[in-house]
Amino acid sequence: MSDETVVRMAEIEIDPVYLEAYQRLLAEEIEISVNIEEGVLALNAVAIKGYPEKIRILEVYASRAAYEAHLQTPHFLKYKAGTVGMVTSLNLIDVEPLMMHSKP
Amino acid sequence: MSDETVVRMAEIEIDPVYLEAYQRLLAEEIEISVNIEEGVLALNAVAIKGYPEKIRILEVYASRAAYEAHLQTPHFLKYKAGTVGMVTSLNLIDVEPLMMHSKP
Repeated sequence: MSDETVVRMAEIEIDPVYLEAYQRLLAEEIEISVNIEEGVLALNAVAIKGYPEKIRILEVYASRAAYEAHLQTPHFLKYKAGTVGMVTSLNLIDVEPLMMHSKP
Repeated sequence: MSDETVVRMAEIEIDPVYLEAYQRLLAEEIEISVNIEEGVLALNAVAIKGYPEKIRILEVYASRAAYEAHLQTPHFLKYKAGTVGMVTSLNLIDVEPLMMHSKP
């Protein structure tokens, strides 16, 4: 992981009425982003147990430029436009990677 | 990722006096765990920007048994014993994986 790496944590709350639709849009956006964008290294989305509407996403980008490019992709814009009425709370937290280690 | 996968988020706050020592112990524990324990799939530790003492770790285990085994390893016990006086707050949040996708 280089010094350039950009890591962010998103804390998102979803209107329960739209939870299934939101999950579908999020899963599609994550799959496409990691598969086709070279600079999107990982997108790990989880929900707090017992509170499926409370979502946390750990996002890892190769660089600031990769992150900015991601925001302009058709799949991200589709997700953003499609979910705007579903999200009741969004908290974006910039974080510094300390030690990120996964099985290859 | 199987249905058995156990994912957890730890929210940890460190006494700033011990921050460097804590980071060293954490980095060592993460490296050894992911390298030698088959069932420890990923440990991703980050700190909130501007608040290096506020740490978040996303932990991914292959199963409940793998998680329980991890808690008994010498390297985890060393980390736990070595950091007990450094941690001022520890909040363990059980989460459900929604979509976890990383570059291979």
